[in-house]
Amino acid sequence: MKVLLPDTIELSPVLPAGWESAVVDARAEIPAEHHDADALVVWGSSRRHLASAARDLPRLRLVQSLAAGVEGILAAGFGDEVVIASGTGLHSRTVSEHALALILALVRRLPEALAAQDDHEWSSEIGGIQPLHPAGRITTLLDANVLIWGFGDIGQTLAPLLASMGAHVRGVARSAGRRAGFEVVEEDSVRDLLGEIDILVDILPASEATAGVIDADVLAALPDHALVVNVGRGTTVDQAALRAALADGTIAGAGLDVTDPEPLPADDPLWDAPHLLLTPHGAGGRPVGADERIVHNLRALGGDGEFDHRV
Amino acid sequence: MKVLLPDTIELSPVLPAGWESAVVDARAEIPAEHHDADALVVWGSSRRHLASAARDLPRLRLVQSLAAGVEGILAAGFGDEVVIASGTGLHSRTVSEHALALILALVRRLPEALAAQDDHEWSSEIGGIQPLHPAGRITTLLDANVLIWGFGDIGQTLAPLLASMGAHVRGVARSAGRRAGFEVVEEDSVRDLLGEIDILVDILPASEATAGVIDADVLAALPDHALVVNVGRGTTVDQAALRAALADGTIAGAGLDVTDPEPLPADDPLWDAPHLLLTPHGAGGRPVGADERIVHNLRALGGDGEFDHRV
Ligand SMILES: NC(=O)c1ccc[n+]([C@@H]2O[C@H](COP(=O)([O-])OP(=O)(O)OC[C@H]3O[C@@H](n4cnc5c(N)ncnc54)[C@H](OP(=O)(O)O)[C@@H]3O)[C@@H](O)[C@H]2O)c1
Ligand SMILES: NC(=O)c1ccc[n+]([C@@H]2O[C@H](COP(=O)([O-])OP(=O)(O)OC[C@H]3O[C@@H](n4cnc5c(N)ncnc54)[C@H](OP(=O)(O)O)[C@@H]3O)[C@@H](O)[C@H]2O)c1
Repeated sequence: MKVLLPDTIELSPVLPAGWESAVVDARAEIPAEHHDADALVVWGSSRRHLASAARDLPRLRLVQSLAAGVEGILAAGFGDEVVIASGTGLHSRTVSEHALALILALVRRLPEALAAQDDHEWSSEIGGIQPLHPAGRITTLLDANVLIWGFGDIGQTLAPLLASMGAHVRGVARSAGRRAGFEVVEEDSVRDLLGEIDILVDILPASEATAGVIDADVLAALPDHALVVNVGRGTTVDQAALRAALADGTIAGAGLDVTDPEPLPADDPLWDAPHLLLTPHGAGGRPVGADERIVHNLRALGGDGEFDHRV
Repeated sequence: MKVLLPDTIELSPVLPAGWESAVVDARAEIPAEHHDADALVVWGSSRRHLASAARDLPRLRLVQSLAAGVEGILAAGFGDEVVIASGTGLHSRTVSEHALALILALVRRLPEALAAQDDHEWSSEIGGIQPLHPAGRITTLLDANVLIWGFGDIGQTLAPLLASMGAHVRGVARSAGRRAGFEVVEEDSVRDLLGEIDILVDILPASEATAGVIDADVLAALPDHALVVNVGRGTTVDQAALRAALADGTIAGAGLDVTDPEPLPADDPLWDAPHLLLTPHGAGGRPVGADERIVHNLRALGGDGEFDHRV
């Protein structure tokens, strides 16, 4: 049995007995000598690579993505006999870390601090003696109301971090209830909450249902002092509406790690939106625990245990 | 019995029976009508105010600072019969939050991201597919070695936050041992550790013993990829040595909330040091739980319980 590993990441899975591995160019078609592969690991793989895998590997039974989003794999046309497993969970610690970095940078006004530093200005607006909760501004996570829209693996990793810093955290998902100790509401009832949200964190996947859900209405329903952070997918936000909300001051700031499209074209007006902090899709990009996930799902393919994050 | 409250912060302590309060100008001498005060709360108070308190209040028995550092009060010349209590602990949550904001901003390269954003550049150096632990650079707290120099109330609040994000945290204090579940070493043995430290966090108070302890030798002993953050006091760092280390690239970045002097003069070369993120002493500045601390120590003055954080 053979598993093909991508050349885009250093992997060293301790393979189950009977398995061998080969490293292939993840941007190219799969060479003939590897058309006997039983499993394929996908990371930064090109559309061409995936199309070749779907077409050229008759024995293929498992496509193991290391990414949380599997839109590209689903679109590649694999047969029904091929198990597709996502990398959900492998990015939860890095993406929640980045989300917290963006949130704290906005709350603690680091972009303004850098601008003042450029001017050699010791700004008494940012430092010195201050009220804990000044009117019209969020300056600490203590007692802040945070809503995490898309409360899956990453959201549930981020929520306890925010809570341990004093924030009140709720989630939005496709079904309501309590998850990981936090209150989760459905999209239908989220609108009633928005008026009391200080920080909205978008960790939604890309799908037809999530396209543009953070729209002008949602942004208008947030208080003027609200901060919006997106580490999910750019398509989930109406970018023109976000720009307008920042320009008009109907929200106080935004931190985006994802945009639509990516890369964001140099002439896109979003770059210059006020109170915006933009990072170029760097929240994840480095799966943690990939080897263990691969081994687990190769075992499952051999009938030993259940698949982890089968799509 | 009378307690004088400063006009620099909104306070509403629920006073013990027999106590009344009056608000006074914390920048001015204490007016004659209040020379009968028994207790004084200090926050952003001027040297003149403290000198007047030491001189003009014969019945004074308690000076309650809301700040963690009490250098100014100790210098004002209060008699031995006056209990001095610090605000240690009232700033632990806000200062640890700010320290984490600075640490994550450096780790997640937010200053570089802002510069790229200014240039409308989707930087593949910062985003995209990356190794988890690239050579010569710290890009995540996962498995990072953090040393908190000054492991008191603030340090012990910060440490579990960093640990919950995957960092390995140790402390430095005046005596070794385990504190709050973390290994603490003495200053004498810290030099052996520095070579393996990725992030050094200075939360030392100002004192003769701490002046300039983060000096050229300490900075040279750190790896080139190390990040240095100071939310304690500016005097604890040899600022010229820090500037040189940043300029020479013998450390990778620094985040300072405190400098020496403050405000930092506009012509100080520190402003323009490379890979420096500077905030104008804004980590704390907003005590949390001040009313409760005041009431607790007024009770203690009346013989009901022990003083909290008596100096
Ligand atoms: N910026 C980066 O570098 C980076 C890195 C990794 C991942 N991501 C993005 O983050 C996304 C989330 O990752 P994850 O690991 O947390 O995925 P996950 O565990 O699958 O969680 C997705 C969450 O979104 C919710 N959701 C889906 N459609 C929804 C809808 N129409 N309305 C409301 N909620 C909806 C799901 O609800 P249910 O729980 O009810 O199903 C679930 O709570 C990924 O899909 C990926 O796009 C970004
Ligand atoms: N940036 C801001 O806005 C802000 C706000 C509040 C406070 N601060 C600063 O933060 C400082 C620390 O606050 P805290 O509440 O954590 O104080 P703390 O509880 O008194 O802790 C001070 C720590 O420093 C250690 N220490 C003192 N002298 C030392 C020396 N010579 N060598 C090694 N360690 C030494 C102490 O060691 P032992 O435990 O062994 O005594 C203790 O662990 C304050 O003094 C203040 O200057 C800054």
